[in-house]
Amino acid sequence: MANKPSVGFIGLGIMGLPMAGHILKAGYPLTVYNRTTSKTRSLEAEGAAVAASPREVAENSRMIITMVSDSPDVQEVVAGPDGVLDGVRPGSVVMDMSTISPQVERDLDRQLREKGCALVDAPVSGGDVGAQNATLAIMAGGDREAFDRAVPIFETMGKTITYCGPVGSGQLTKLCNQILVAVTLMGVSEALVFAGKNGLDQRVMVEAVKGGAAGSWQLSNLAPRVVDRDFAPGFMVDLIQKDLRLVMESGAAAQAALPATSLVNQLFRTSQARGEGLEGTQALAKVLEQLAGG
Amino acid sequence: MANKPSVGFIGLGIMGLPMAGHILKAGYPLTVYNRTTSKTRSLEAEGAAVAASPREVAENSRMIITMVSDSPDVQEVVAGPDGVLDGVRPGSVVMDMSTISPQVERDLDRQLREKGCALVDAPVSGGDVGAQNATLAIMAGGDREAFDRAVPIFETMGKTITYCGPVGSGQLTKLCNQILVAVTLMGVSEALVFAGKNGLDQRVMVEAVKGGAAGSWQLSNLAPRVVDRDFAPGFMVDLIQKDLRLVMESGAAAQAALPATSLVNQLFRTSQARGEGLEGTQALAKVLEQLAGG
Repeated sequence: MANKPSVGFIGLGIMGLPMAGHILKAGYPLTVYNRTTSKTRSLEAEGAAVAASPREVAENSRMIITMVSDSPDVQEVVAGPDGVLDGVRPGSVVMDMSTISPQVERDLDRQLREKGCALVDAPVSGGDVGAQNATLAIMAGGDREAFDRAVPIFETMGKTITYCGPVGSGQLTKLCNQILVAVTLMGVSEALVFAGKNGLDQRVMVEAVKGGAAGSWQLSNLAPRVVDRDFAPGFMVDLIQKDLRLVMESGAAAQAALPATSLVNQLFRTSQARGEGLEGTQALAKVLEQLAGG
Repeated sequence: MANKPSVGFIGLGIMGLPMAGHILKAGYPLTVYNRTTSKTRSLEAEGAAVAASPREVAENSRMIITMVSDSPDVQEVVAGPDGVLDGVRPGSVVMDMSTISPQVERDLDRQLREKGCALVDAPVSGGDVGAQNATLAIMAGGDREAFDRAVPIFETMGKTITYCGPVGSGQLTKLCNQILVAVTLMGVSEALVFAGKNGLDQRVMVEAVKGGAAGSWQLSNLAPRVVDRDFAPGFMVDLIQKDLRLVMESGAAAQAALPATSLVNQLFRTSQARGEGLEGTQALAKVLEQLAGG
């Protein structure tokens, strides 16, 4: 316990709040910042220090985590006024656990290196349940030594921690995850529509095929929700659309052809146009039902 | 053992030969037929009777299995000259375990009913390994009583046996299986190309994401083969194309929209045009690599 480095945590949303709680419970000295200050209270009551700015978090911490919504938010808290760059000390490590553009991570890493620091990009999968239960999958990129210093802290929040390569590799791996999630779900949606239109019992169909080569997490977990007409969000349409935009940007930059991901990206726009952006991704099935004439 | 009904088996290919062997080993009196007679020898040595025609199989069996390639082949052995319909006795059950058109199954069922018999359509998944190890998934449709009589025989060949509904429902469920297989594999291929083009280690990417919401049988089993440039067939491109043709026919008839399945069907045509129709379905990844410029 004696040698635990000071940790800073910026961004106490639905993911960040439980993640910061795990770090505090593991015995790390913790300083937190959130734009909406009311979110800091529960952690303060458990012993965390509350900073007035990202700069102040950086001044007080050797390991600084950011967990915010999108690329501009990370740029703001790291490189904006009173940001991490204004307070960071040489030798500190910034761990960005948001899902954002790999290119933005590379830009921020360059700026941090000028201050003698390193960036580890470390987006997660597993959702709010994974954040609460400390079972997140963490996909990390960056300087290997900086990653090794971050691992004990990652281990308080996740169960699968993978070093993926140089800075940006964590984000790129997360984007691969989202390609797989989106296209697999598309197959599930088409199978359900095909079954329904042909008079099959969709539930029986899913049970018959899920144990074999057709099987997937998406089929086992989301197909039953579609059958039950349960479109409550596990992962929201608006959020996967943010990630698929990042996929399309990085795909275009690298000249990777992604025809199916592109198709799903387009069809989720129909979900959004239908006013279903806050529903779970399984709402994709409703778009296909509509295409098929109900 | 005393009450085991006589079983006929028509079609001793890579799937049918081991399947018929399991029935014989389970103690059923077995009569077999194959167009190429040399395939009957090993079963004959183990005690099976060899018939000269599908008609003769039907004359000698209460439960008649057909396991051939495509719709015209089933039509030929059931309704063609010297076919099952010419020899079948009232009360017998025909179990077609081929993967063919649901509409053809309904037509054949009607003709069998005129002879006092019933058809159970019961396509399988699990491939030649599943046939050898008696671990096939069997998806069956037809008269419920006929299905119940078929179950003990199915149990000698498979581990998951699902009753899916009226005749044709087994085929429709198998086609759902193929939609899922094809589109999930498409997502796997796009993720691999995206990873490769962006400089990620594809193997590390797969390991990082396969345990979560991105996970699937296709990802765990076929992505590593693509990484190893192993395109040997588990399931051949030419065969999934046959099944996707059936999907498109039944999808059109039922007015189900299948944009992603249709896309994969088109891209597998490129595999075939590249001369890769006898390779495994994971050859789809090479088409995407080519689209992306190598």
